[in-house]
Amino acid sequence: MANLELMKELHRDKGGKIVLLVMDGLGGLPVEPGGPTELESAHTPNMDRLAAEGTLGQITPVAPGITPGSGPAHLALFGYDPLLFVVGRGVLEATGVGLHVNKGDVAARGNFCTVDGHGLISDRRAGRIATAEAAPIVEKLRSIELPGVEVELRHVKEYRFAVVMRGEGLDPAIEDTDPQAVGVAPLPARATDAASKRAATLFNEWITQAGARLADQPKANALTLRGFSSDPALPPFPEIYGVRAGCFAVYPMYQGVASLVGMDVLHFEGEAPSDELAAVAGKWDEFDFFFIHIKKTDSRGEDGDFRGKASVIEAVDSALPRLMDLNPDVLAITGDHSTPARLRVHTWHPVPFLLWAPATVRADDRRGFGETNCTLGGLGTFPAREVMALLMAHAGRLEKYGA
Amino acid sequence: MANLELMKELHRDKGGKIVLLVMDGLGGLPVEPGGPTELESAHTPNMDRLAAEGTLGQITPVAPGITPGSGPAHLALFGYDPLLFVVGRGVLEATGVGLHVNKGDVAARGNFCTVDGHGLISDRRAGRIATAEAAPIVEKLRSIELPGVEVELRHVKEYRFAVVMRGEGLDPAIEDTDPQAVGVAPLPARATDAASKRAATLFNEWITQAGARLADQPKANALTLRGFSSDPALPPFPEIYGVRAGCFAVYPMYQGVASLVGMDVLHFEGEAPSDELAAVAGKWDEFDFFFIHIKKTDSRGEDGDFRGKASVIEAVDSALPRLMDLNPDVLAITGDHSTPARLRVHTWHPVPFLLWAPATVRADDRRGFGETNCTLGGLGTFPAREVMALLMAHAGRLEKYGA
Repeated sequence: MANLELMKELHRDKGGKIVLLVMDGLGGLPVEPGGPTELESAHTPNMDRLAAEGTLGQITPVAPGITPGSGPAHLALFGYDPLLFVVGRGVLEATGVGLHVNKGDVAARGNFCTVDGHGLISDRRAGRIATAEAAPIVEKLRSIELPGVEVELRHVKEYRFAVVMRGEGLDPAIEDTDPQAVGVAPLPARATDAASKRAATLFNEWITQAGARLADQPKANALTLRGFSSDPALPPFPEIYGVRAGCFAVYPMYQGVASLVGMDVLHFEGEAPSDELAAVAGKWDEFDFFFIHIKKTDSRGEDGDFRGKASVIEAVDSALPRLMDLNPDVLAITGDHSTPARLRVHTWHPVPFLLWAPATVRADDRRGFGETNCTLGGLGTFPAREVMALLMAHAGRLEKYGA
Repeated sequence: MANLELMKELHRDKGGKIVLLVMDGLGGLPVEPGGPTELESAHTPNMDRLAAEGTLGQITPVAPGITPGSGPAHLALFGYDPLLFVVGRGVLEATGVGLHVNKGDVAARGNFCTVDGHGLISDRRAGRIATAEAAPIVEKLRSIELPGVEVELRHVKEYRFAVVMRGEGLDPAIEDTDPQAVGVAPLPARATDAASKRAATLFNEWITQAGARLADQPKANALTLRGFSSDPALPPFPEIYGVRAGCFAVYPMYQGVASLVGMDVLHFEGEAPSDELAAVAGKWDEFDFFFIHIKKTDSRGEDGDFRGKASVIEAVDSALPRLMDLNPDVLAITGDHSTPARLRVHTWHPVPFLLWAPATVRADDRRGFGETNCTLGGLGTFPAREVMALLMAHAGRLEKYGA
């Protein structure tokens, strides 16, 4: 919290424009020992120029060795210590599709799954059922009624949906019903303390009624719920930093976390990096801080597609001149965590960080944007939660501390 | 505490084998400006290969500028913040020789000393009396009886012994009786608060009776006590990390701190690095985590023996192939603190850290193991208490944090 209080105390309500460009899962690993990483193998003349003009470093998302999920990783980039501010998966999922989670509500992430004749899970993701097929199934669940509470539902994507229960006396301390295995039945929603018994009972009743409505489905004939959680009441980003903050992201999860901290979430046409940067250009006068999120670097990493991940980075690089034409005062290019294609999962490895700010940056001697250069960069290795203070400082948006 | 709770929450009960090889006091300084350190001057082809394949960094034992004792330095390496978890010297000394210190007991480290006819200390270490000569003197003190408490004694080495007092109403807030100077008398055991008055009184009575029994000794004719302390109740290492942990150390102090955190302390033949690694090989199937402690690097550093310290490092390097043949998944080579031969004492300088983990490490561009390379390594400079999370991550033993 200390860092946020300092920002709140020191920020000016004027200064340069800041762009935080996050390529999800940017950090990588070489395929062969001694070879380049995804970022190092990508052809990125624009980023390399920015690296030469600016300074590099690497960020630790949560703490050394800790592999973050998307929520904690982004909170850290926004300056919120992810070990102090904990946002549940249910809340992130719901917020990401525009479902509000207010104080006292309980949100969960839902997954459709397939169960066999004995009620045992045979596919935890219902054969990754298509979005077009799954959306009407979510509609069927809307008719469920429970005494004294309201349940709001929204389809997310493929087999995933979000559920929010609203009413008196609800508490989110409930264990996941997803057993994280096949060959076993979904678990009941089990309260982990007395306060959450009522919510658990109601969720179990809802699950029973849902089961009856899904029984005739070929794939999505059951469901699991996880990440039961409530409104985390995060202190608002625009107040902490004194900026008008806009989020330019394609995926609901990232819109969700931006929305939770109080950024404006912008909607625009297209999903390519160039579309996102075009959207930024269209709103340039309306914001002081621009959070741009590129998802596909992480997706290709999780696919194990080394070249594909490098290609996404190249697409971002090609679109960069559009952004530079806007003359941002501060531009940071980084990731929220590493997703090396070789390992196909999020990892704990530090994340490359590039800071460009022509008026104020102390440039280092590094000439290209990549993991090894970032290791040797002028900013050293530092926690992601300190990124925001750096961006604010370079934008001339922070007062002196003390006299 | 946060870090330990996170480890407890995130650890898996499976994954790769981890070796933490600690060369005590590893960090050094050049003799001449611009020259190599002890580690850099040592011929270490095996460590240099591991450095090339792995990644380097440097660790800060407690905090920048803080010189640690052996206890705090090792607690940090095991993931316990040494500013939060304080273990008294008395407890370390007692535990190291197999004396248990339970809740409510008070332990102290004892030193034999020589006093002159006026009762003033002429030698704080009783002429570094030989072990064979000192052990029977400790025996003579066993006959001391005190009302309502039991006193257990054990000889440690040369002029040193450990004492543990057990009984009701004891508290360890007592000042050292060692004045840390010659030409003055030993101090009385002085309680620093009301709760410790009873223990202080009893220790003073014990010291008086001991004085009578030692009066006719030529060298060890008096004693001092220091490091009064009680059981620190450390959360157990095997539970925090979900590993079977074995300690392979020759010196009681390091066995003691390993035992305090709940590691199994192994006993084996020989004291050379090669003996220690052979012992590890013999127990390879029985543990997931191996703490190996090499003492002589520190001893030679404290002797001011630059070349001797380098030779110990070389002996470890020569023994390394024996360890590598076991195919550890993760190997860290580091020290607990620096003991530059030029300064002959523990210092605060950051400590070289080498991390080798073929399946998961992000290699950096450094090719040899030494202070300058570690400064430029991929891991940067980080607190020693974060080492364990890194080792756990690289062994595939940690779940993701948050969604």
